[in-house]
Formats: sequence, C-alpha cells, structure tokens
Amino acid sequence: MANIVFIATSLDGFIADKQGKLDWLQSVPNPDNVDTGFFALMERVDGLVMGRNTLDVVLSFDCDWPYSKPVFVLSNTMTEVPRGYEDKIFLINGELKNVIRELNAKGYKDLYIDGGVTIQNFLKEDLIDEMVITRFPILLGGGAPLFGDLQQPLNFKVTKSEVVLDTLVQTSYVREK
Amino acid sequence: MANIVFIATSLDGFIADKQGKLDWLQSVPNPDNVDTGFFALMERVDGLVMGRNTLDVVLSFDCDWPYSKPVFVLSNTMTEVPRGYEDKIFLINGELKNVIRELNAKGYKDLYIDGGVTIQNFLKEDLIDEMVITRFPILLGGGAPLFGDLQQPLNFKVTKSEVVLDTLVQTSYVREK
Repeated sequence: MANIVFIATSLDGFIADKQGKLDWLQSVPNPDNVDTGFFALMERVDGLVMGRNTLDVVLSFDCDWPYSKPVFVLSNTMTEVPRGYEDKIFLINGELKNVIRELNAKGYKDLYIDGGVTIQNFLKEDLIDEMVITRFPILLGGGAPLFGDLQQPLNFKVTKSEVVLDTLVQTSYVREK
Repeated sequence: MANIVFIATSLDGFIADKQGKLDWLQSVPNPDNVDTGFFALMERVDGLVMGRNTLDVVLSFDCDWPYSKPVFVLSNTMTEVPRGYEDKIFLINGELKNVIRELNAKGYKDLYIDGGVTIQNFLKEDLIDEMVITRFPILLGGGAPLFGDLQQPLNFKVTKSEVVLDTLVQTSYVREK
C-alpha cells in the first residue's frame, strides 16, 4: 500500500503561476507524446485522491477525462458528482487517516494523491510514501506552492533521478522513516 | 563573464530551516570528502559576491575561511572588514548592475553569487547566468527560501543533472533568454 504523489513543479516550487495558470507546463515540446510516467503510474494505482479544486481544474480542461481509475474527491460540501461522471468520481470526506484506511480496506491500496492542498494535507500527517517530482527549469516568481508548512521535517530517499524531454528533471523519492 | 549560483536547498526550497539552522546539510554522509562541485567552482570564478548576513554566517562557522578568491560583500552599513580579513573581504555597495560592471572591468569576470537575499536580488534584475542547485531530499516545512518574488518568469535550460553522494540531486541550469 502506498500513497503516491506525481506532479510537476517549477524550479521555485509552484504548481500554478501567479494567475493560477498552467501554460508553462506546455512550454516543453513533446512532439512524440513521450510518456513521462503518468500512464505507468495510472496502471499501477488503484485510484486517485484529490480535492475539489483540482477536480474543477481537470474538468475545465478541454480534453478527455484523463484518469482510467476511480477518482475519490475530498469534499465536505459536494453532495453529488457532475452528471456523466457517476462511474468515475466518488465523493469522500472525513479524517484523512480514516479515509485512507477505508479505501485500503475496499481494495484501493496504491493511491495517486493529487493537487497542491491535498498533497500538503497528506504531508502534514506524514501520509505520503512516494513522490515523483518533475521539475521545470523555470522560475515563476510566485503562484500556488506545491509544498507547505510542516510541524516536523520529513526525510526522503532519492531512488531515481533523470532528465526527461531533454530539459525536465524528474526525481523519485520514497519516505525514509 | 558569468554570475553563477552554487547552493544547496531542501526539497521544498529552503536554504535554512525554521530556526535558521543548517544542520540538515550535514545529514548526508560524505566520509571520503567527495567534492560535489564547490572546489571546481572556486577554481573557475574570479571572486564571490554575498550579502552581510551570509558573511556573518560564514564567519560564525568553526572552520577555516572557505574561499580562495576575493569575497565582495554587499553592505550599505559596514565601514570596515573584520580584522584579519583585509586581504580576503572587500566591501561594495550601490546598484547591482553597476557593482557588477565595475567588478567585471577590474577583471573579476566570473562571480559566485551567494546567499539567499543576494541571489534573489540578482534574479530580480535578471543578473544570474548559471545556477547549480543541489537539492537535499528533505522537506523542512519552512525556513529561509532560496527563491523569491519575481515580476516576470525566468526560463533556464538544464545542462546537467546527476545524483551525487547517492542521495542529492545536483542540477546545472543556464539562463535561456
């Protein structure tokens, strides 16, 4: 069982720019549509966990629904999933530890944890086991930060690091307790 | 001529922890004292530029003076260098662009720019040409940030990235204009 982060960030640690935009993620040419790990991760995990904000961002994209596994959305206010997504999106709420325990018990063991606020909340409770961080060589100078405040430092171990698409540094970390 | 940053940062982008401490930099064993680039850089540059705070931190270390090249300290308030350092430390002040132009004219062409605030001030004026960032696999959860606010994003290009000492990700960037 593992809670896994797979996310792109700017060199200065932002996942969206000052205007909340993600254009800079498109700044790296990928003409052959090389998979930088997303599809392999999607194969591996049993489901995703994200917050309401991230869901809204994904739904706003002008593209097909990108997830082949169930998406569990943490929300205290949503009462129903968007029409047409009843077999893809499932609402959850409560204490993170309990939520994860229940998902694990139902067979959702490896989970892709997505979205800045959700990742930060998981890290605050030391619930992240692995992270794959893809760092773009751009200083955005402000925006939505990937990481947030922690009571205690958390140590990780680098298991792999490589340059992908000639310009992104993708590093895999596992939590070292 | 190049202004070069060579600095270590936590995974979440801090150069000192919440208590202003640097202990975590010692958390990676280096029994053979492998040089991770510092001495090669010291050979290459003609001098260093740092702020008063960084100078004070370096002077507080219980070790020999680490720099083999002249250290130019940006300060509007210091009037003399610490006793015994008259041939090592030189005070400078004024507009960064002018300061650099004057140093370059005197033959100090490649400069190692050190210290969080100084690096941030250089980046604000787009005066950094190269950066070597050594990222430790630890989330500090707060502290003194390496990067700061920018009016405009700055693009870099990754020229090299490798894992050093088995656990640090060291990436070299050049400014892409």
